[in-house]
Amino acid sequence: MENFVFQNPTKIIFGRDTEGQVGKETKEYADRVLLHYGGGSIKKSGLYDRVVASLQEAGVDFIELSGVQPNPRLSLIKKGIELCRQHQINFILAVGGGSVIDSAKAIAVGVPYAGDVWDFFERKATIREALPVGVVLTIPAAGSETSPASVVTNDDGAWKRDIGSDLIRPKFAILNPELTYTLPAYQTACGVADIMAHIMERYFTRTRNTDLTDRLCEATLRTVIKYAPLALANPTDYSARAEIMWAGTVAHNDLLGTGRIEDWGSHMIEHEISGIYDVPHGAGLAVVFPAWMRYVYHEDVNVFARFAARVWDVEPDFDHPEKTALAGIERLKEFFRSLGLPVTLGELKVGDDRLEEMAAKCTARGPVGNFKKLYKEDVYAIYQLAR
Amino acid sequence: MENFVFQNPTKIIFGRDTEGQVGKETKEYADRVLLHYGGGSIKKSGLYDRVVASLQEAGVDFIELSGVQPNPRLSLIKKGIELCRQHQINFILAVGGGSVIDSAKAIAVGVPYAGDVWDFFERKATIREALPVGVVLTIPAAGSETSPASVVTNDDGAWKRDIGSDLIRPKFAILNPELTYTLPAYQTACGVADIMAHIMERYFTRTRNTDLTDRLCEATLRTVIKYAPLALANPTDYSARAEIMWAGTVAHNDLLGTGRIEDWGSHMIEHEISGIYDVPHGAGLAVVFPAWMRYVYHEDVNVFARFAARVWDVEPDFDHPEKTALAGIERLKEFFRSLGLPVTLGELKVGDDRLEEMAAKCTARGPVGNFKKLYKEDVYAIYQLAR
Repeated sequence: MENFVFQNPTKIIFGRDTEGQVGKETKEYADRVLLHYGGGSIKKSGLYDRVVASLQEAGVDFIELSGVQPNPRLSLIKKGIELCRQHQINFILAVGGGSVIDSAKAIAVGVPYAGDVWDFFERKATIREALPVGVVLTIPAAGSETSPASVVTNDDGAWKRDIGSDLIRPKFAILNPELTYTLPAYQTACGVADIMAHIMERYFTRTRNTDLTDRLCEATLRTVIKYAPLALANPTDYSARAEIMWAGTVAHNDLLGTGRIEDWGSHMIEHEISGIYDVPHGAGLAVVFPAWMRYVYHEDVNVFARFAARVWDVEPDFDHPEKTALAGIERLKEFFRSLGLPVTLGELKVGDDRLEEMAAKCTARGPVGNFKKLYKEDVYAIYQLAR
Repeated sequence: MENFVFQNPTKIIFGRDTEGQVGKETKEYADRVLLHYGGGSIKKSGLYDRVVASLQEAGVDFIELSGVQPNPRLSLIKKGIELCRQHQINFILAVGGGSVIDSAKAIAVGVPYAGDVWDFFERKATIREALPVGVVLTIPAAGSETSPASVVTNDDGAWKRDIGSDLIRPKFAILNPELTYTLPAYQTACGVADIMAHIMERYFTRTRNTDLTDRLCEATLRTVIKYAPLALANPTDYSARAEIMWAGTVAHNDLLGTGRIEDWGSHMIEHEISGIYDVPHGAGLAVVFPAWMRYVYHEDVNVFARFAARVWDVEPDFDHPEKTALAGIERLKEFFRSLGLPVTLGELKVGDDRLEEMAAKCTARGPVGNFKKLYKEDVYAIYQLAR
């Protein structure tokens, strides 16, 4: 086991009707807030009205900034920073999924900073201050509701870059599974793939003797695997939506990485796909992860055999652990397929022509991943396996 | 699943040599602290010297208060409160196990309160303020290093009472598994029983559809069950000590209770034993828990059958789930016995003469537990089963 530091102070408020507490929770931090969201879905569902009513009841003033897109854009963030400064706003309330939360976090660090907020994403400046952020979550997927990270796309050059700081962890996150009833099936499935990927990026490690963390990962994966089909079959199954939503937070609140060196190679490899092609991050991960696994499993077969046996109930073949390992990878791929997710680049409509360029860009700052360090030719080989 | 709020902001610093960070972490909160500990064991082991060196290096002044006993006493706490006031102390550093931490928490709420600190334990006053507390943990058992609770014994009337407030959650907890190498076997085993009890008090619930939490509980139990015998066989097995130590914190940081109504009947039943007889809390729990299980399992056999199958690998008897359930309870009892723990009141040297009085005292403020509400005659029956 590696030494580690673990701290996650975000207050989780989970369950039915909990969005009615948003005013009271926000009031602990501010009287004037920026209400930040995406498009019209929160208005159609009535969530917008309930959030506004709760803020008004608590005596919290707000101004609005909507229009956050998937892969949140720098231009809107800059607009948000200006708005906050003009109106002396000192709290950002994100109502939405990972993109809205990431956009809110970027605004939060930009407001008190005299320079260009993109400096943080280019590592030209260090985050020393941020407005507090609160969340009402509508999509279980990214885990941004308790994470210290934000991923933003620069409109100019289509650069997707991230920042990380404990200062941008949300102060509270309100998770009402009922708010996810209206998520389309494909988006639900993409969220599930993203959640599973967050766990698997941590599960596949060369660090030994991290048994509790292994088992916590397996527990969370098994829960998602059980409930994802139920949520797709019956979108208003509260239990299924609740298990997925809570698993989505547990998957990415850092607990499941304690004591081990995490991988994150597949995320880097996927970013090149969704950076160029307009595909959901979760769909890209469903394609990349099984390919990555087939490429790296023989580096440490036992970890993959354990994954097969303990997550997928594959009967271990003790004479041929590599068969057990491969059966587990196949089960994952079948599972993604059963959710209606793509499992090949072809299904994603990603052609062969730019794979080499993508492999080069992915490894431009050095090899990616830790389970096996992946250089340009490795990443290219993984794209080939994903075809 | 029940609605829930989950928040645990304690910073965990885990691993080898981490006690060297105590000065720096403390300095974030204070320049003058009370260094609070038990007896001579931290001096013998050299931990005391390392903590003092780290505080001095960080420029943190300290005064000392040692002498905390198991079941920490109110008299020492009052002395600590006086000391802190005299010396303008504004931080309590607990170096030890659950008793030292609980004592530190009680001092922390007493210092800024004008009345008698015991008022909080008698619910005559509400905690509105507390000095910050930090921890260097030496015994994995009580989980007090991240909990909002403190249990104290009043010297006058031998009353064991508790307080709970987020204000007394430690700011940081330093967990170095090497510090537990010198724990005697019996104390290690008692700690393991306490850790398992914290999980089982949460696991056995009548709340349905809390699958992720069930699985996280099972994962943590399985880890403890695997590593406890290894730690006893080889006290300096780092991996075994590390898994138990981290499991001890995860067991009691509230995550494993999310979404469900917890039980805590066995703890109440045990408190009457360790309140009268001088036995370790963990040893008392090893006696009470299997008896409680045998008394209540038929209220909801399936939960106990799942416990047997998923925690103990008992092959389910689908025609007779009660046989599966009983086999699981028997496995738990055998496991405690294998660790050298008592599993009957006789082995604890607790006679029959006061069982009725204990059952009455246990239920004086109403029935205990939630899986089944236990009245005086139920508690008495459980004591009988534990003989």
